[in-house]
Amino acid sequence: MADRAIGVFDSGIGGLTVLKALLSQLPGESLIYLGDTARVPYGTKSAQTVRRYALEAAGFLVARQVKLLVCACNTASSVALSDLEDRFTQPIVGVIEPGARRAAALTRSGRVGIIGTEGTIKSGSYKRAVRALNPDIEVFSAPCPLFVPLVEEGWADHAVAVAVAREYLAPLMAAGIDTLVLGCTHYPVLKSTLRQAMGPGIELVDSAEETAKTVANMLRAGDLIRGDSPPAPRFFVTDEPDRFVRVGTGVLGINLERVEKVEID
Amino acid sequence: MADRAIGVFDSGIGGLTVLKALLSQLPGESLIYLGDTARVPYGTKSAQTVRRYALEAAGFLVARQVKLLVCACNTASSVALSDLEDRFTQPIVGVIEPGARRAAALTRSGRVGIIGTEGTIKSGSYKRAVRALNPDIEVFSAPCPLFVPLVEEGWADHAVAVAVAREYLAPLMAAGIDTLVLGCTHYPVLKSTLRQAMGPGIELVDSAEETAKTVANMLRAGDLIRGDSPPAPRFFVTDEPDRFVRVGTGVLGINLERVEKVEID
Repeated sequence: MADRAIGVFDSGIGGLTVLKALLSQLPGESLIYLGDTARVPYGTKSAQTVRRYALEAAGFLVARQVKLLVCACNTASSVALSDLEDRFTQPIVGVIEPGARRAAALTRSGRVGIIGTEGTIKSGSYKRAVRALNPDIEVFSAPCPLFVPLVEEGWADHAVAVAVAREYLAPLMAAGIDTLVLGCTHYPVLKSTLRQAMGPGIELVDSAEETAKTVANMLRAGDLIRGDSPPAPRFFVTDEPDRFVRVGTGVLGINLERVEKVEID
Repeated sequence: MADRAIGVFDSGIGGLTVLKALLSQLPGESLIYLGDTARVPYGTKSAQTVRRYALEAAGFLVARQVKLLVCACNTASSVALSDLEDRFTQPIVGVIEPGARRAAALTRSGRVGIIGTEGTIKSGSYKRAVRALNPDIEVFSAPCPLFVPLVEEGWADHAVAVAVAREYLAPLMAAGIDTLVLGCTHYPVLKSTLRQAMGPGIELVDSAEETAKTVANMLRAGDLIRGDSPPAPRFFVTDEPDRFVRVGTGVLGINLERVEKVEID
């Protein structure tokens, strides 16, 4: 059982930040990644549609005998996690709870900011998760729909990205947050732009790192850590692989090999 | 036969600019619109995937007995028009040829610019269409992936949109174009921003208006013009209708009623 792979899925390339963190924290694990690139993005779509897509994506990985599922998409984690838990018997890790836990531990002012897609923010998932941990924390949210296109365009460090970040973050800064959760897997690429837009003194919470820690803890607790010499990660996408390979390699600095197109709908 | 509806499809809301032009130029026609909002956008996806989606979208409209099909998506018109013509017997109008014809007629310098999605520009469809009309015209193209997200965010007239437009258009301005084809149905919303970024002296070609003219000419030629008192347009979408209604109403100023969710995949 420990030898089985971890299955990671996302709407597209964003979840590669989670995969990267898993590779770094769990170097002995075998990993399978699925990016639903034919239907990306999830963040502007309805909860009902995202649920259908997430169940299809997870089903593809479960059919490949994974020992644990990682829902590396914040939008899908926000609206589909309980549906996934109802449908499948494998342990499932979403990206919301790990990020919320870290933010609750870090904040000193008790004022936490959340940024994410329309779908993630609209769901209120982070707010619920943070306040379940500590009901005294105040949570301020802002949807940032232009961040994903800016990252995918390779403009993460462009002056335009800083201007957009200033506008999106203004209400959170005015609210006096001291901790900001990057509630979308694309956003870690924007870290230096966000710091530039916000000035010093704000802690950034990277859900990818926190999620990988949660996965490591669960595998250890279940005695499911794999030995060494894992096979290279395998990548599946639902559209032709070329854009996934280009953007994933360029933006995230991940070397993408063994990428295969599949149909999951 | 003349009483049958015209079927219009697009990846999402962009094609509403074509619908608006049809309503204005052909006030007696009955119209059915399909937006594939569960899989939007098409512009960043591969030609193979866009072909599959376009055939499914057109099939949905053909099953509703339309007399003519309008492919109101530049990306789908660029890569799937001949597949649609092979599959269906109805006359099919895409948005590329009408825009190219207008640009070829307007340019005096013989230097035409095309802006569009990655998929449209990569296909070379406009370049081929313009040069088929006049091989002496030089065509300069620029993909503008941030324009659609900016329009959908309601930032079409924002300073950020002007900055993005300046950067995207700089190579076309340097090439000395005198005519610019708005090769994506979202772009007419950006007209004043584009004028601000380019300065005076550049003709803008709106594919939506040109496509509606082509449809009107085809219906007249085929004696297929409908009488007056048409039913209100019907709208179908593949995701939940709320975002379509909100963005379509807000950005395009179209009053959206009778919007129904359907599955086409």
